[in-house]
Amino acid sequence: MYELGVVYSRITRADRVAADGLAALGSATVHEAMGRVGLLKPYMRPIQTGVQVSGTAITVLLQPGDNWMLHVAAEQIREGDIVVAAVTAECGDGYFGDLLATSFQSRGARGLVIDAGVRDVKTLKEMNFPVWSKCISSKGCIKATLGSVNIAVVCAGMLVSPGDVIVADDDGVVCVPAARAVETLAAAIKRESFEGEKRDKLASGILGLDMYKMREPLAAAGLVYKD
Amino acid sequence: MYELGVVYSRITRADRVAADGLAALGSATVHEAMGRVGLLKPYMRPIQTGVQVSGTAITVLLQPGDNWMLHVAAEQIREGDIVVAAVTAECGDGYFGDLLATSFQSRGARGLVIDAGVRDVKTLKEMNFPVWSKCISSKGCIKATLGSVNIAVVCAGMLVSPGDVIVADDDGVVCVPAARAVETLAAAIKRESFEGEKRDKLASGILGLDMYKMREPLAAAGLVYKD
Amino acid sequence: MYELGVVYSRITRADRVAADGLAALGSATVHEAMGRVGLLKPYMRPIQTGVQVSGTAITVLLQPGDNWMLHVAAEQIREGDIVVAAVTAECGDGYFGDLLATSFQSRGARGLVIDAGVRDVKTLKEMNFPVWSKCISSKGCIKATLGSVNIAVVCAGMLVSPGDVIVADDDGVVCVPAARAVETLAAAIKRESFEGEKRDKLASGILGLDMYKMREPLAAAGLVYKD
Amino acid sequence: MYELGVVYSRITRADRVAADGLAALGSATVHEAMGRVGLLKPYMRPIQTGVQVSGTAITVLLQPGDNWMLHVAAEQIREGDIVVAAVTAECGDGYFGDLLATSFQSRGARGLVIDAGVRDVKTLKEMNFPVWSKCISSKGCIKATLGSVNIAVVCAGMLVSPGDVIVADDDGVVCVPAARAVETLAAAIKRESFEGEKRDKLASGILGLDMYKMREPLAAAGLVYKD
Amino acid sequence: MYELGVVYSRITRADRVAADGLAALGSATVHEAMGRVGLLKPYMRPIQTGVQVSGTAITVLLQPGDNWMLHVAAEQIREGDIVVAAVTAECGDGYFGDLLATSFQSRGARGLVIDAGVRDVKTLKEMNFPVWSKCISSKGCIKATLGSVNIAVVCAGMLVSPGDVIVADDDGVVCVPAARAVETLAAAIKRESFEGEKRDKLASGILGLDMYKMREPLAAAGLVYKD
Amino acid sequence: MYELGVVYSRITRADRVAADGLAALGSATVHEAMGRVGLLKPYMRPIQTGVQVSGTAITVLLQPGDNWMLHVAAEQIREGDIVVAAVTAECGDGYFGDLLATSFQSRGARGLVIDAGVRDVKTLKEMNFPVWSKCISSKGCIKATLGSVNIAVVCAGMLVSPGDVIVADDDGVVCVPAARAVETLAAAIKRESFEGEKRDKLASGILGLDMYKMREPLAAAGLVYKD
Repeated sequence: MYELGVVYSRITRADRVAADGLAALGSATVHEAMGRVGLLKPYMRPIQTGVQVSGTAITVLLQPGDNWMLHVAAEQIREGDIVVAAVTAECGDGYFGDLLATSFQSRGARGLVIDAGVRDVKTLKEMNFPVWSKCISSKGCIKATLGSVNIAVVCAGMLVSPGDVIVADDDGVVCVPAARAVETLAAAIKRESFEGEKRDKLASGILGLDMYKMREPLAAAGLVYKD
Repeated sequence: MYELGVVYSRITRADRVAADGLAALGSATVHEAMGRVGLLKPYMRPIQTGVQVSGTAITVLLQPGDNWMLHVAAEQIREGDIVVAAVTAECGDGYFGDLLATSFQSRGARGLVIDAGVRDVKTLKEMNFPVWSKCISSKGCIKATLGSVNIAVVCAGMLVSPGDVIVADDDGVVCVPAARAVETLAAAIKRESFEGEKRDKLASGILGLDMYKMREPLAAAGLVYKD
Repeated sequence: MYELGVVYSRITRADRVAADGLAALGSATVHEAMGRVGLLKPYMRPIQTGVQVSGTAITVLLQPGDNWMLHVAAEQIREGDIVVAAVTAECGDGYFGDLLATSFQSRGARGLVIDAGVRDVKTLKEMNFPVWSKCISSKGCIKATLGSVNIAVVCAGMLVSPGDVIVADDDGVVCVPAARAVETLAAAIKRESFEGEKRDKLASGILGLDMYKMREPLAAAGLVYKD
Repeated sequence: MYELGVVYSRITRADRVAADGLAALGSATVHEAMGRVGLLKPYMRPIQTGVQVSGTAITVLLQPGDNWMLHVAAEQIREGDIVVAAVTAECGDGYFGDLLATSFQSRGARGLVIDAGVRDVKTLKEMNFPVWSKCISSKGCIKATLGSVNIAVVCAGMLVSPGDVIVADDDGVVCVPAARAVETLAAAIKRESFEGEKRDKLASGILGLDMYKMREPLAAAGLVYKD
Repeated sequence: MYELGVVYSRITRADRVAADGLAALGSATVHEAMGRVGLLKPYMRPIQTGVQVSGTAITVLLQPGDNWMLHVAAEQIREGDIVVAAVTAECGDGYFGDLLATSFQSRGARGLVIDAGVRDVKTLKEMNFPVWSKCISSKGCIKATLGSVNIAVVCAGMLVSPGDVIVADDDGVVCVPAARAVETLAAAIKRESFEGEKRDKLASGILGLDMYKMREPLAAAGLVYKD
Repeated sequence: MYELGVVYSRITRADRVAADGLAALGSATVHEAMGRVGLLKPYMRPIQTGVQVSGTAITVLLQPGDNWMLHVAAEQIREGDIVVAAVTAECGDGYFGDLLATSFQSRGARGLVIDAGVRDVKTLKEMNFPVWSKCISSKGCIKATLGSVNIAVVCAGMLVSPGDVIVADDDGVVCVPAARAVETLAAAIKRESFEGEKRDKLASGILGLDMYKMREPLAAAGLVYKD
């Protein structure tokens, strides 16, 4: 349930080092490190490929077909933020294009996550302004009805509070609560640290069955081999 | 409601200069310039990226699973046309591949917009023959039942008449009625002319809030700022 | 109806020359050569572009949210295989990432076809390990419940038996039964052999209407031309 | 392409006897009698069951989230009309409830066909005011932006002109152009007249294979029987 | 972001009179009275027809394919509650059937709102235990992994906190925050009080155009009437 | 991979007592008794409510938009059969209406399960001929291309062989292989036998937590209660 017509201009952002450091781990590893919570629904897809970012969330609640609050949100952006936009009802309009991206980028935003559509995608890619969205549409928006900025919003099924860390790449978008950013970074780094050795073993032909010692539990579960 | 089994071989194409000129503006700007009508449903996606075209519509009505009329349509293509294909019922088959593309291209077609599937997409991209479609499928079509060529068709929810201007890019596909092509080009150019200055201002850090003088109407609408 | 908890370790693979040779023909031509059967549903999309492969199927039946059996399947892979994975119920989790891909690749697998989600897609593309999947998701899987390996499975609506040939490219995925691989290759090559000449004619401006002698049957079907 | 902000108050309705008579035939038979054109997309579903109606179309073009024009349309309704509402973009809001239904019903409307959502469905059923819609939603609409009344609209993929005949029942919704209403009624009645005898034969156990003399063409097509 | 493995056994329920009284107003009126927020996504549909309920929310967070926490939730139910169940990832399994319904009903629950599937729907209807769900499925669940009870959850896109009021009927499901229940009831009653008179006027043939004095603003917006 | 153009007229049906007896257990219980395999995808929905049937499968493979083989299948129906129809590609046409239902019913069929659309649904319900389908559509079919009868088909994601038992009700459709029908009936009856006692306990207010002795494993899994 949303409070409408309000902008919270003083938010508590997650620890900066953690917020910046999570990008390198990627959404899949961070999601694991969180205990498999925090993932936005997988229909959120990047308009570009190969970009991996993290940053602190500026949240925006929009009305259907109306992108007024994105202009209001621009003022709240600080270096290192990612804008997370939700809509009060399903809408596939193109809320965001190259002009807003220019503004967001000049304010220090690292990207946009929006549970709706965007446009000017060719230019956005040329600008290196990454976007994760529900769809792409040429249809623009009006500026007539208030939403809010920096309230907790539900974006693609996930609750995102202002200041939380957003980690986004080609695999999807994960939200890490501000209070858990530091511990999540530590857990993700630890997780990642084991991967190099595993990868080398698997590349050499060693089976996961042996490396992870799965043969016994599989047999215990009843797995049988037949010719 | 469709007239079946007919080919209209003499159609009135939109003004050539306008039909050619709209490509540079792009689907989002043209859609705005039209007063936000004319957009095909956003499920129509390009198989390629970065292509922006416009041209005059040759329309085709197809039967489900049957691409016979695309061969009939080929003969009606003139330099600068874009083929717009609708189907009498939902169908995701691959109606169009590299052979038809070779034929269309040799006749002067600039692209295809089809409310169904296509195939040979790797080759189509290598040929630089752009396509906007509902999906991609290896499944081919038979040639058994008549549709029509150059009648008004509903393609992805939009009425397209032969001779209308089609503008298509990475953001989507817009149809401009032939009679409105010239005025739409003028309106789109005018719209576009303001964008450079705006972009420079936003890039310099000036907020849309100030540039568009939104603070007063936002306050009037009741927006409040809280700490 | 599936037999659970079993691995068939001795399977009969399709003729190797046919299994390897079908890649060059591509999914659309092979589908035609089969008489238009064998296509997996078109929602199966490649995570990469421009890759065209064929190989013999190792089949895996997975449980929702559980990728245990992919590790079991790895051991059954021989050079030239493609892993085909089905799930006992709809699931969009990310069953497969770069570690499993490293293992599969080291065992000789040419790719993965999975009626579920995958992750680490950026790395998978860098590794040149091609994947066709239903979706992409950061969400990982547990390893707790048995499925089976090398039983006949329904993957994206198509029955795939171990040893069948899989042909996959940007247009989609086709399954050729092992017993029909040789004849299908012959039929596909024959089909393909006519295409070069046709393409040249169409490129020169000759219409399909004339090349395929369609004018008479079209007229017989009642097609009329009007001004 | 739509003309916005206009109401055509003088429309030519289809022949009244034909418009009224088509109800008894039902959407499936009428669709066949039309040569299999005119069907709205099957996602249009009735909120009630067992109702079969026909009437002349009052068309309305709506804006997303805005039902203002339904009030404008109410004035244009005459006894025997069915209101057909399209939206300029995808929208699932509840555009229509019991108050508008009361108004429409008092003006003589026989029902509503809307490519969007409706609400108060329990009351609408109690009022015996039939509705075919894309969905059901509690979410209401604003009254702020103009659309049009009695222009040709695309509703659920089908072009509907004011005055056309709408036939709707549990199977779906068909549009019969005003100019073809009389001939379609005749064709549908003729078609229906053969059905009773066929039904009796089939009920007695005679096979369609024999009644329709299909055995020979099936054999000619290559059908073989095996044990 | 969810806290897993916890049950909050002491929750603050909304005012009982308001929680009970909202049922009579229905989801559409309550949604309006809230200022058009609080609606769960319209894919949530009742398995029954004609039931209109309200009650205080017991919330449950479930894991995919696992209904263990519904048993844990049962203990927390008090007379007048409605159970609201969310899942950590998309899942269409049948989480709930007649046995759980018997338990919930005996504990005083008025219904279930679940962003997943249910089964035994015939029996549930005979028991008069109303359910709003995403789908129906015969597939059951395991009991292996912890979720939580009575934490704030996102159900069908809406944040629901334990103790909030749920209003559900054939039009959909609305969540009223506990703190706003009393004022929402007052606003909804006020809104409803005007409807009877309006309905009578509209039934008598008076147009909404006149009753709502729309003709002037429509003309001001530019609406024109043509013959 | 399908064999086209063939009718197998001598099939082995499942044990009659088991095939008939499974109806009373219902799809959810039978699915459990099978170890949670055999369920057709949940998009298969009944056109009627409250019907629970079982019978032996006559299978039909159809071509898109073509219902010729349903007439061929009619001849193969014996008392106690249920027709299961698959299509070689996605199709939502209305393949089946009251005439075919009359024929099927007169031959002894107990129902139809079809991975496509049906029509005349009002009449089908009046005839008490139950149908489970993907959708409803007024659009009819042609009779031009061969499929097959009584080959193994993939229907809604599940492999169904002729003679298998189909169990269908308001919860969905389950396929029991002929060879497992007797043991499945026994397992389902055993499962059902425990339900009455459980239901009585739960109705008396005893919690599943206690009846199923879940408190200990929940605590072991780490569940904590907080105020």
